[in-house]
Amino acid sequence: MERIPILKLGDLLLVTVQVELHDQLALTLQDDLTNMLARTRARGVLIDISGLEIVDSFIGRSLGNIAAVAGIMDATTVLVGMRPAVAITLVELGMSLRGIRTALNVDKGMALLRESVDEPGATPSPS
Amino acid sequence: MERIPILKLGDLLLVTVQVELHDQLALTLQDDLTNMLARTRARGVLIDISGLEIVDSFIGRSLGNIAAVAGIMDATTVLVGMRPAVAITLVELGMSLRGIRTALNVDKGMALLRESVDEPGATPSPS
Repeated sequence: MERIPILKLGDLLLVTVQVELHDQLALTLQDDLTNMLARTRARGVLIDISGLEIVDSFIGRSLGNIAAVAGIMDATTVLVGMRPAVAITLVELGMSLRGIRTALNVDKGMALLRESVDEPGATPSPS
Repeated sequence: MERIPILKLGDLLLVTVQVELHDQLALTLQDDLTNMLARTRARGVLIDISGLEIVDSFIGRSLGNIAAVAGIMDATTVLVGMRPAVAITLVELGMSLRGIRTALNVDKGMALLRESVDEPGATPSPS
C-alpha cells in the first residue's frame, strides 16, 4: 500500500510529501503520524512540500487537518519548502493555511520548532 | 518534471526515496545531489529508503553510483531505513551494496555521519 514515510529526527518528525496527496493517502498519513506521535512522543512535526508543484484546496485542507490532529497530540506542525509559485497561488486562491506555521526550509523550520517547544508555556500562534 | 527533493539538515543532506527509482529519476537525483553538494559544501548524505518495498539490482546500482559521485565530492553517503524484507532480499540476491554504509534509521545515520565527518585527521572542508 502506498504511504508517505515519516522520519524521526531526534525529537522531531519529518514528512516529505513528494506525490499528490489524494484522499486515501492523506488519511493514511494522518493515521501514521498520529501513531508515530504517540509512540515517539515527538513535540514537533515538519512537513516538507518542496516536491509539490501544486497545492490545491484539498491538499491545503488535508495539511490543515494533519496539523490540527498533531496539535491535539501536543505537537506543533511547521510546513516547510513551499515553492514561490505555490505561495503565490495560495494567496491568489485566498487560501490562508490557517493554523499552520510555515518556514522557508527544513533548517529554519527546525529552529522554529525548537524555539516553540523549548518555550515554557508557549501556545503556538497561527501564522 | 519528476524529481526527488533533497533537504538540507544543517551540514547534511537528506534524500527520501519514496518512488521506484527509474532510469531518468536516478540520473536527475545524481545531478541534483552533485549540484547541492557543490552549493552547500555538505559533507554527508543520508538516503532514506523506508518508503521502498523493493530494491532491485537497478536501484542498488543507482544508489551505489550516487554514493560514488558523492564520495568524489568529498561527502559520505549512508543508506538508512531499509526494511527487513529488503535486507533479506538483497542478501539472497547476492547484492552487497558495496561502498555504501548503512544505518538502521535517520537518527543513527546522522550519528554515524557526524562521527565520520568529525574524525580527527579528516581533511577540512574548504568552507
